[in-house]
Amino acid sequence: MTAATDIALLSEEMGKVSKAIDGALGRILPTSEGHEAQLFEAMRYASLAGGKRLRPFLVLASASLFDVPTERSTRVACALECVHTYSLVHDDLPCMDDDDLRRGMPTTHKKFDEATAVLAGDALLTYAFEILSDPETHHDPLVRAELVHALAKESGGHGMAGGQMIDLLAADHEMDIGEVTRLQQMKTGALIRFAVEAGGIMGRATRDQFHALQNYAHDLGLAFQIVDDLLDVEGSEEEMGKAVGKDADGGKATFVSLLGIERARTQADMLASQAVVHLDIFDDRAELLRLLPHFVVNRRH
Amino acid sequence: MTAATDIALLSEEMGKVSKAIDGALGRILPTSEGHEAQLFEAMRYASLAGGKRLRPFLVLASASLFDVPTERSTRVACALECVHTYSLVHDDLPCMDDDDLRRGMPTTHKKFDEATAVLAGDALLTYAFEILSDPETHHDPLVRAELVHALAKESGGHGMAGGQMIDLLAADHEMDIGEVTRLQQMKTGALIRFAVEAGGIMGRATRDQFHALQNYAHDLGLAFQIVDDLLDVEGSEEEMGKAVGKDADGGKATFVSLLGIERARTQADMLASQAVVHLDIFDDRAELLRLLPHFVVNRRH
Repeated sequence: MTAATDIALLSEEMGKVSKAIDGALGRILPTSEGHEAQLFEAMRYASLAGGKRLRPFLVLASASLFDVPTERSTRVACALECVHTYSLVHDDLPCMDDDDLRRGMPTTHKKFDEATAVLAGDALLTYAFEILSDPETHHDPLVRAELVHALAKESGGHGMAGGQMIDLLAADHEMDIGEVTRLQQMKTGALIRFAVEAGGIMGRATRDQFHALQNYAHDLGLAFQIVDDLLDVEGSEEEMGKAVGKDADGGKATFVSLLGIERARTQADMLASQAVVHLDIFDDRAELLRLLPHFVVNRRH
Repeated sequence: MTAATDIALLSEEMGKVSKAIDGALGRILPTSEGHEAQLFEAMRYASLAGGKRLRPFLVLASASLFDVPTERSTRVACALECVHTYSLVHDDLPCMDDDDLRRGMPTTHKKFDEATAVLAGDALLTYAFEILSDPETHHDPLVRAELVHALAKESGGHGMAGGQMIDLLAADHEMDIGEVTRLQQMKTGALIRFAVEAGGIMGRATRDQFHALQNYAHDLGLAFQIVDDLLDVEGSEEEMGKAVGKDADGGKATFVSLLGIERARTQADMLASQAVVHLDIFDDRAELLRLLPHFVVNRRH
């Protein structure tokens, strides 16, 4: 079990990372005086709206296993956050999930317009690869090329974008637990996997270390998503007085609709413990990564 | 002046490249059996619809200056064509230019739906970087990283995406010839620049050779766009009996609306000749690149 002081330590560290990433994104995102300025404003608007910055935290924590300098891991964390932000901007579009609000603020297409939101997402995705391939990110071109390759694989058709496609069509299919797991490993798991792998790529991890990180990311990503489904159901009950299982009634299978609340909760806890075990081959520098899974399954938002 | 036999040679070569790229794209584009298959179908539908394949031709021709193996330059050409295709798919969306047809076929959002078109564009853009960063594209990671960096810069906010933003807002601004030139250098010039630079990156061009290629791309890109504007006006006159200058009346400045037909035509011819002069430092392997500008300004579609 994790002591309260450990969780307090982790919370504090996550808060620091979140602030540092806000600052770093503000500095690294491009600006322009030309007629295209609106595009850059939209990129900034979407990227600087706060958020937990879980993925950047994972990049920094995994990089610190190998004593990678923070300036480098921060740039990689910013690149990843650009991709995460682009995915939110496009997912919020009227033709996708059609959301007007995100974190209590108008979504990018509401604040600007749809065309600007599409382009801002495109430009954020593109900019992520510009950051990663820049010699400032890492002096070794092999590391830069490997970071680009890993991020492209995890966010493309076989990763995040493919997951979003499955999700959009999910109401048309009966999905079993295996298919929901695959969907979530693509849609949300893929960027979590990149976040953890990035430290290993920058730090030239051994094969065993790299596999340990991948297994950790796998379990953490699933635990994260199961808790998301749980919070969705629990949130709905409190806020809207709706019955448990509304997603299932709406035709979309989730971990909770398939497993029920109790088994889903048990599964998340089990995955969190399992994630930590994968880190056994690392030393004390893995402390934050060890604390995170418990924090993730016990979060309330 | 360019002899008719030279133009015939160039036409034949362009036809060969176009076929080779169709085949290569068909092989390199990913497939899937899962529920995400629709995404891959849309990526293929948009990419394999034909077209002149001018940018791939430029990649292959610039790479051949340095005897870069065709297998390598073909992969880079495919990556570039993925980016070009993504830009067309997103530009055709209802919130952008709202086009139902492209090359006589339904646009991607008409053939599938808007969400699929947004995602297919996203996945094509992402896949371009996966191709470039793959060791199969080049054994030297520095070349891979430099290709990624150049493509990201040319297609992002300071390149193609920024150009599209300016174009979307163009009706709101009075634009002079300098601003129209800047817009077009970003919107269409940027990918032409990458196409020509790519050969220099793969071939480890000297600084002088690289500058020569950039200057060539600059003039060729502008000549290409001026002719596009001319064909738009001439096409309109024949097809719809409308007066010259409809784009200007519609509030959008073009080279033709600002210069008039005659001066625009003279300007295009001058740029084409100038482009060829930049290639003086290269040997006979530059023959196709030397023929291309004249072909571009004399094209009828």
